[in-house]
Amino acid sequence: MRLYDYAPSPNCYKVRLLLAQLGKKYERVPVDIFGGDTLTDEYAQINPGRRVPVLETDDGEYLVESGAILLHLAEGTSLLPDDPIERAQVYRWLFFEQSSVYPTVGGLRFLVGTGRVDAGSAPKGPSVQALKVLEGRLSEDDFLVGDSYTLADLALFGYVHVADEGGIEMARFPAIQRWLDRVREQPRFMNDLESFPGNARLGASRSIYDG
Amino acid sequence: MRLYDYAPSPNCYKVRLLLAQLGKKYERVPVDIFGGDTLTDEYAQINPGRRVPVLETDDGEYLVESGAILLHLAEGTSLLPDDPIERAQVYRWLFFEQSSVYPTVGGLRFLVGTGRVDAGSAPKGPSVQALKVLEGRLSEDDFLVGDSYTLADLALFGYVHVADEGGIEMARFPAIQRWLDRVREQPRFMNDLESFPGNARLGASRSIYDG
Repeated sequence: MRLYDYAPSPNCYKVRLLLAQLGKKYERVPVDIFGGDTLTDEYAQINPGRRVPVLETDDGEYLVESGAILLHLAEGTSLLPDDPIERAQVYRWLFFEQSSVYPTVGGLRFLVGTGRVDAGSAPKGPSVQALKVLEGRLSEDDFLVGDSYTLADLALFGYVHVADEGGIEMARFPAIQRWLDRVREQPRFMNDLESFPGNARLGASRSIYDG
Repeated sequence: MRLYDYAPSPNCYKVRLLLAQLGKKYERVPVDIFGGDTLTDEYAQINPGRRVPVLETDDGEYLVESGAILLHLAEGTSLLPDDPIERAQVYRWLFFEQSSVYPTVGGLRFLVGTGRVDAGSAPKGPSVQALKVLEGRLSEDDFLVGDSYTLADLALFGYVHVADEGGIEMARFPAIQRWLDRVREQPRFMNDLESFPGNARLGASRSIYDG
């Protein structure tokens, strides 16, 4: 397997974390988004949407969308329950993550982390709204689905554990903070998410970031 | 089963279409978003995210996120393939729909359809970019995944078939237009999507629309 990957992107880190927790070997292919790597004709063949991550399977199939890659890799493991309702709840949190957390919390982290906006003046309403839904859920139970760690927890961890980098006061969300620690205690947990490099800063970039 | 539903929302229509194509009986519970129905304490119990659609199962479980509801209902049918790669591609298009089509194409339709923005002056770049990815895929094959109609086609149909209501020139996308007709020819196809009612117009609304 081969992962087309950008080190500072939580969408990519989620896949790296899952591969580590499943003990899967793969080749990592760095894609310099702000260096223009996704703008080439070659990259359009790999992903016409010009995004990362992309997983190339051993059969040479290209899989895109981090949520789809996670579901594909976790099939048959305890991270993706067989019970139809629990499985539907895992799907639910994966879609929630992509529609309500990635564009808000992830967007803020990008704007602040690349010097486009000051942490203090960035608009935080939509991020806080999404985090409140998560805080409510995690005030009830230790994990998002069922009574153990699943793909839902892994997927949400990606952007939520760096929400503070976008200027969000995480002390407002004590249940989320306890849950973040619970995720960090899982077997084979690792964190190799990087900060944005210099070429991602405003004025230096050649591409629109989407990770 | 019970569907908490808003008639003008393609996210809700997708679920109604799937239920019709699977021949499933259910009770439809209209939720007047702009009348404040999602702002009550009762609705927060059903969905803390205060969105539609919500599917209440026969066991009294509440499922949210249209993509999760579709995957749950289609499990075990030909609309959701067993083959791991085809299944991953269905996931891929469902995530693409929620992250790249719903906020762009769906957002435009809302802004124009409720009188918030003129069709002519609405910013169409992100919508066109998403539709180009779809056009490219549908120039290669008749359906999005494999060689027959799947959940991926159903899910994308929801917002794409009304993209013109947001002021997008669909003549630019001939492969999409032929595919829309192919979807309309599927067994038990139906379309009961409604236009936005008067209370959704700017100044009349009490709630932020999310459908």
